[in-house]
Amino acid sequence: MFKIKPVEKIPVPENVKRYLKEAIGEHKVLDDEMDRMLYSYDATRLSVPPDVVVIPESEEDVQKVVKICYENDIPITPRGAGSGYTGGSIPVKGGVLISFEKMDKILWIDEDNAVAKVQPGVITYKLQQAVEKRGLFYPPDPASYKFCTLGGNVAENAGGPRCVKYGVTREYIMELDTVIYTGDIIHTGRITLKDVAGYDITRLLIGSEGTLGIFTGITVKLIPKPKAKKTVKAVYMDLESVGKTVKDIFKAGISPSALEFMDKLAINAVEDFGHFGLPRDAEVILLIEVDGHPKALEDEITEVARICEQNGAKVEIAKTDREAEKLWEARRSLSPAVAKLGRTKINEDIVFPRSYLPEALPRLREIGKKYNLKMVNFGHIGDGNVHANFMINGLDPDEVARAEKAVEEVFELALSYRGSITGEHGVGITKAEFMRKQFSPQEMEIMRKIKRVWDPKNLINPGKMDLD
Amino acid sequence: MFKIKPVEKIPVPENVKRYLKEAIGEHKVLDDEMDRMLYSYDATRLSVPPDVVVIPESEEDVQKVVKICYENDIPITPRGAGSGYTGGSIPVKGGVLISFEKMDKILWIDEDNAVAKVQPGVITYKLQQAVEKRGLFYPPDPASYKFCTLGGNVAENAGGPRCVKYGVTREYIMELDTVIYTGDIIHTGRITLKDVAGYDITRLLIGSEGTLGIFTGITVKLIPKPKAKKTVKAVYMDLESVGKTVKDIFKAGISPSALEFMDKLAINAVEDFGHFGLPRDAEVILLIEVDGHPKALEDEITEVARICEQNGAKVEIAKTDREAEKLWEARRSLSPAVAKLGRTKINEDIVFPRSYLPEALPRLREIGKKYNLKMVNFGHIGDGNVHANFMINGLDPDEVARAEKAVEEVFELALSYRGSITGEHGVGITKAEFMRKQFSPQEMEIMRKIKRVWDPKNLINPGKMDLD
Repeated sequence: MFKIKPVEKIPVPENVKRYLKEAIGEHKVLDDEMDRMLYSYDATRLSVPPDVVVIPESEEDVQKVVKICYENDIPITPRGAGSGYTGGSIPVKGGVLISFEKMDKILWIDEDNAVAKVQPGVITYKLQQAVEKRGLFYPPDPASYKFCTLGGNVAENAGGPRCVKYGVTREYIMELDTVIYTGDIIHTGRITLKDVAGYDITRLLIGSEGTLGIFTGITVKLIPKPKAKKTVKAVYMDLESVGKTVKDIFKAGISPSALEFMDKLAINAVEDFGHFGLPRDAEVILLIEVDGHPKALEDEITEVARICEQNGAKVEIAKTDREAEKLWEARRSLSPAVAKLGRTKINEDIVFPRSYLPEALPRLREIGKKYNLKMVNFGHIGDGNVHANFMINGLDPDEVARAEKAVEEVFELALSYRGSITGEHGVGITKAEFMRKQFSPQEMEIMRKIKRVWDPKNLINPGKMDLD
Repeated sequence: MFKIKPVEKIPVPENVKRYLKEAIGEHKVLDDEMDRMLYSYDATRLSVPPDVVVIPESEEDVQKVVKICYENDIPITPRGAGSGYTGGSIPVKGGVLISFEKMDKILWIDEDNAVAKVQPGVITYKLQQAVEKRGLFYPPDPASYKFCTLGGNVAENAGGPRCVKYGVTREYIMELDTVIYTGDIIHTGRITLKDVAGYDITRLLIGSEGTLGIFTGITVKLIPKPKAKKTVKAVYMDLESVGKTVKDIFKAGISPSALEFMDKLAINAVEDFGHFGLPRDAEVILLIEVDGHPKALEDEITEVARICEQNGAKVEIAKTDREAEKLWEARRSLSPAVAKLGRTKINEDIVFPRSYLPEALPRLREIGKKYNLKMVNFGHIGDGNVHANFMINGLDPDEVARAEKAVEEVFELALSYRGSITGEHGVGITKAEFMRKQFSPQEMEIMRKIKRVWDPKNLINPGKMDLD
């Protein structure tokens, strides 16, 4: 787990560094020790320093850098905020890392067509705030939304709690400007809801983890901001009733804007961390948010509460926005709270078809017990996306070895239900060896050949997704 | 327009016919004159007979046929209902046509996960009826929904009036089983809302017009059936107010489930055809449907009516389902009504970004006047998708020549607003020559190379989309 296969690193020769500096300006090309270290890691805490860090300020800068690197056989790795969980922005082969921190402008917001165009370095939250002021809404909300960037969101096809109702990043990208290996820019997609000319290159690029081209412009779809929302907390003493509740809510024709769960260990971790007043003896807590038209909302939240109660839960509807916010604060504090349980957090984001969760979750816990590991499960039960966390001492080789086996079994469990090894985090380097478990040799071959169409020399974010 | 570039047709040698018959059974392989003619055309009325028609009854049949054809250099063209408007299912190079009429089973409906799996020959309406009985909903509603097939819908990424609220076919496809050129099957996608492992091959296949592989299984996403719906008719005397109305509706945070328009000539064609009581002197009629929770709906339909009135329209809310149905009947009768206006209907489905419509629509009409052609415009104003119809006498060479020039200008107009040459119909053969207007040489090259990954010998639905 979390090891980087030793690969030959490709140094950037002095003459290429000079070309880069001449092409885009000396101050945008960094190569001292400290800068290289600063751009060497992501949220996995794995680290490989690039040979050179480039901070472009325009699309033209990116074009020049890609052209120079490609002609000189230098690997190129794009990086947003470095908040990824699978090493996608780690320059495993060295070379040039392109950081988008200065390409952070919202270029325009078109209210009439409900679209906005941003540079890839714009922080997701910044876009959300800007459009909400105008009564519009950009739904995708990865946990890192306050610091991650839209470039990274597109590369990873980011999700979040709200995606159960609103869909993932893929559903909100209308157009992409992408620098391809030749240094040319391609413009794919349209700001129209319908456009069926040619292959859907835009969606091939979304979720490609920066391995096909480098995004320089992103046009997003916006929707009307929901007029109101309400939150219900439901406390369960058994898991089966939770599964039944989820089924019943969808059967009632209600599409919640969030449907989150935390298990007992997660509840206790949160309580140790922040004293939110959650019941420590509960088996599972569900947090359910419904949004929409105020009148429909009133009906729907009452119906949700009734369904939870019918399934044996102790139910509370948050009376004020303040009360609701406190519940969501507890949910958001899960990540830091869980991190306190061990030195090293292994955070896997597997997916099950929703209806199999009541059966799969106990089997997931069994894996933790079998390998004698501290395991915390929480996540997006409405879309079957479970964050299975092992909290280990990364310095204990025996514990690490057990965790490696456990992670493999976790993936196998998800795939045995025809789920996925990743719902939000992507594959990057940490899940690369598991691609072959999810995909057949023919499927892998097609993906590798597509990679080669876009990157004949394998220099664009190489070493990721088992596509080399 | 509507000409087929003369290409060398590839005959199927006797020995290959024998292989096919031995592999899947004699009765599934047709090659008499009549059968070849029956499968030679689509809704363009263009016609090229295949050399052999194959009617597979299982996935294995399809695999065997593709393997035999590919090994023997025989072109393969898949066909659903043959209801396409761009010649996508016409076997321009002859060879083998695969018709899916016997692979027409709904394989299962999984209510708990809100998904269903179908064979490609299932008629869209049949699926919709089956899931609506269980309180579920499959939104995509191309005009041909009563006879088109899901295989064709996926190949063309079909749209329809409801897509303004619910999105196009792309948004409802979870998994695809696809026979690739080797005869192997690949299984792409997951029935989970989130899955970010590997490239998004499923969405590359959606809208690929049968040029990458042959679908044998399709798993669709379902949503809760809307609880209620209401329709408003709004009659306008000028176009500008129509554009303003559309803007105001979306600004009010209302997402209509259909927002259709017809211009004066369309209104009169419909009245000549069926006497629906529409005002013949109106410049434009809007039909607006809102669906959802009954309480929210009451508020929203009142608000929509108010917005229309504020913009000078004469407004009527349908009081009963029966009244609403009559309005939609008028809308649906547009296609046959317009067909009566001339021998040959040229139906282009261009797209404009929504907000440019009030400016673009008069310019569209100008093109009709300039070339002295009867022109009828209607379509999905909510998503900017306009059906621009020229009604001509296809036997008059002068009129045909004028229409050809007019169509080219129509596409140029759409592209000048960064719209698209097609919102629903696809490219096929009739729009192939216009691909280069919408895409740059680099973009065309990437698409051609991707085609070659899936089809190294250019035998899978060849001659389409300018990708040869």
